[in-house]
Amino acid sequence: MIFSLGLLSAFSQSQRDSLVIKQISDEIFMNGQAYSNLRYLCKKVGPRLSGSPGAALAVEQTARMLREAGSDTVYLQPCMVPHWVRGEKEVGRALLQNGKSFPLNIVALGNAVGTPSAGITAPVVEVKNFKELDALGKDGVKGKIVFYNFRMDPRHINTFRAYGEAGVYRSQGPSRAAALGAVGVIVRTLSPVLDDHPHTGATRYDEQYPQIPAVAISTNGAVQLSDALAKGSVKQIYFKTNCKMLEDVLSYNVVGEIRGSEFPDEVITVGGHLDSWDLAEGAHDDGTGCMQSIEIIRVMKALGIQPKRTIRAVMFMNEENGLRGGNKYAEIARTENKKFIMALESDAGGFTPRGFGFSATAAQKDRILSWKPLFHPYGALEFNEGGGGADIGPLRPLGTALIGLNPDSQRYMDLHHAKTDVFEAVSERELNLGTVVMAAMVYLVSQYGL
Amino acid sequence: MIFSLGLLSAFSQSQRDSLVIKQISDEIFMNGQAYSNLRYLCKKVGPRLSGSPGAALAVEQTARMLREAGSDTVYLQPCMVPHWVRGEKEVGRALLQNGKSFPLNIVALGNAVGTPSAGITAPVVEVKNFKELDALGKDGVKGKIVFYNFRMDPRHINTFRAYGEAGVYRSQGPSRAAALGAVGVIVRTLSPVLDDHPHTGATRYDEQYPQIPAVAISTNGAVQLSDALAKGSVKQIYFKTNCKMLEDVLSYNVVGEIRGSEFPDEVITVGGHLDSWDLAEGAHDDGTGCMQSIEIIRVMKALGIQPKRTIRAVMFMNEENGLRGGNKYAEIARTENKKFIMALESDAGGFTPRGFGFSATAAQKDRILSWKPLFHPYGALEFNEGGGGADIGPLRPLGTALIGLNPDSQRYMDLHHAKTDVFEAVSERELNLGTVVMAAMVYLVSQYGL
Repeated sequence: MIFSLGLLSAFSQSQRDSLVIKQISDEIFMNGQAYSNLRYLCKKVGPRLSGSPGAALAVEQTARMLREAGSDTVYLQPCMVPHWVRGEKEVGRALLQNGKSFPLNIVALGNAVGTPSAGITAPVVEVKNFKELDALGKDGVKGKIVFYNFRMDPRHINTFRAYGEAGVYRSQGPSRAAALGAVGVIVRTLSPVLDDHPHTGATRYDEQYPQIPAVAISTNGAVQLSDALAKGSVKQIYFKTNCKMLEDVLSYNVVGEIRGSEFPDEVITVGGHLDSWDLAEGAHDDGTGCMQSIEIIRVMKALGIQPKRTIRAVMFMNEENGLRGGNKYAEIARTENKKFIMALESDAGGFTPRGFGFSATAAQKDRILSWKPLFHPYGALEFNEGGGGADIGPLRPLGTALIGLNPDSQRYMDLHHAKTDVFEAVSERELNLGTVVMAAMVYLVSQYGL
Repeated sequence: MIFSLGLLSAFSQSQRDSLVIKQISDEIFMNGQAYSNLRYLCKKVGPRLSGSPGAALAVEQTARMLREAGSDTVYLQPCMVPHWVRGEKEVGRALLQNGKSFPLNIVALGNAVGTPSAGITAPVVEVKNFKELDALGKDGVKGKIVFYNFRMDPRHINTFRAYGEAGVYRSQGPSRAAALGAVGVIVRTLSPVLDDHPHTGATRYDEQYPQIPAVAISTNGAVQLSDALAKGSVKQIYFKTNCKMLEDVLSYNVVGEIRGSEFPDEVITVGGHLDSWDLAEGAHDDGTGCMQSIEIIRVMKALGIQPKRTIRAVMFMNEENGLRGGNKYAEIARTENKKFIMALESDAGGFTPRGFGFSATAAQKDRILSWKPLFHPYGALEFNEGGGGADIGPLRPLGTALIGLNPDSQRYMDLHHAKTDVFEAVSERELNLGTVVMAAMVYLVSQYGL
């Protein structure tokens, strides 16, 4: 045990913090468990969409991991979650004028309704954006399948910006097409790379309009379909999906806590979301964020660091298609009579960290910025305005400073919501380095408050 | 064609530079060829160790790529290179006291001599470092195989630092063991991850001592062997390698050039090395550096940017086991009666860029640092003292400012010199982002000199 603040009294506060953070880093790189825990989550638990048996097993197993990490207490927060199921594999074909056809590489969008059992068959109209859709109007859309072929803009250095621009076609596209009488929707996969893996993700129906079936098509498939449409060779599209929304079921957030020694009622929340899409192992989205949060508990205990404020590692349930866990956590927080001073979420992949984004008061941000040099040795150089995470967003009205870990974004969208989001796509060192800077931030807030 | 400095006259110089760099970035992300060229180099050319048919084909194909990129001139610089061949796959076994044995997952170190055709069989002695070796002395080493089991230190955030510490056992280990009478050497693979892929790499024999066979063992293999030795169950080691050094052969550096419009005799060199180890496709080491350098020529031509100073993209031959290409380039440079003002090398992988390292005069560094804000949007925030690259190092006596691209280092050592260094391990966006910051640096020096 080398951790002893007493022995470090000859050093300045900043030097002591720097040394503690180096100890944290060394412990994580020498004895880190996040990577092996992630292997377990991906390979032994696997996909864990809200309401699925995988999600239930993930609750059980991360509670175990939190106990093994040394949490003072581990508990579950019950919450009802949507239970959407994909059903049998989707089938799609482009039916050509010459009587032939080619297959469409599709997956149903999350939360979407399924087709009738015979599928749907209709003419297709391609639009690049909502402007083109609106220009077509009801006359151009009624009775048809709308194909949104919006390419993610590769010119944005931060891929989340491109994702934001393109994501509206997945979330709003079905209802906007239904408003004009469309019978189905095909959305180009939200990915900057050309490949054969369609990416799923939630859509949101507007209650004003009929709920129509909606699928994502792989980027290669979108290019192929668009080419065929340009040639006038496509007569109709057929697709069949088997998904449906069942009754809500009981699920849980999983919480592991170290009680603060001086200010136990000041709570620091650090987390990721435990649910994943059904197509993949949910390694980067968001197994890594969960495993990093558990690792922060472990490293504090392993080094004998007693935080002054309470630290909670939270595995939020149902980020992907409902946010029920995040909302439940904030709902309970409002009843706890504690101060939720800071929440940090890691839900942008387990890639090498670039920095953090902050949604906080000016005073909170000043405090945080004063720590910035401590992060320099670990490459977390970018401290940006704005950020947080979907699950911690509901804490904002409580005055909680929200912080999002910002890993390098270049690779995330290649595999996001696709079957390629597997354990093998995670680098142990990148995962650990992300944990180091998260742990450092949690440590500093736990010592000095905000 | 949106590039027109005339139309930009209302802007400050820094604003104009910022706009040009954004055009460069957009062109690379929209129409970049580096990734598809890399696919060709990895999949159609493949391994290209100096003197091999692959190396000859790589010369031919990168000359083609440089022509297609729009170089004003493309030419070859002949140089003689070592011709080391691995021969048949290596075999190794740990022979146990109980008469049984287990296989050793080994590869010969580059430039090493082979064993006699019967292989070598000898007792083994494990050391963690040179200090332990020296403590054993001749009595403890003579007639034995020395097993250097130095683990790369995972605590260094920059993996190149850990590589530097551990690399001496590969480069100097065989001769230091031979000095004490060892008959063979096994070096633990230089990798931070535990897996079954031994990494090769050059060793250097000291002429004073006998040249003894030397191999790398996979990290898992090193752990297994060490455990068996700790139990006392290993009687002897047997291994057989079939490598040898043949006569030098003729090879080439490949150069593509854009002639400077105002100062054609001021030369900017940007490059990577074209040779790779024989075990892998040499994707990150260093196909990416070569493809990035070719892309810089392409993007300048595609945007109609006429550099004031001459830009040379150079594919250096023989970085891995001789540096003949780098030395030849500097040797020719000394006769050219030009000023070699700056050289930039990318030989640390095609990962997301973190910044640059500089070996330059104070005045050169001041100039470069004044440009730092221009790199901020692209995440190249770290401008560090010291850096360059093996191939451009020989230019230093000419007063050339040396710059090394520093990509994120977390993943490089996992696959460096191993069969896992393949095209699939490269992210198109990371590769492109690295090219963007390289192109920006080359552009700035080409406009303003140093």
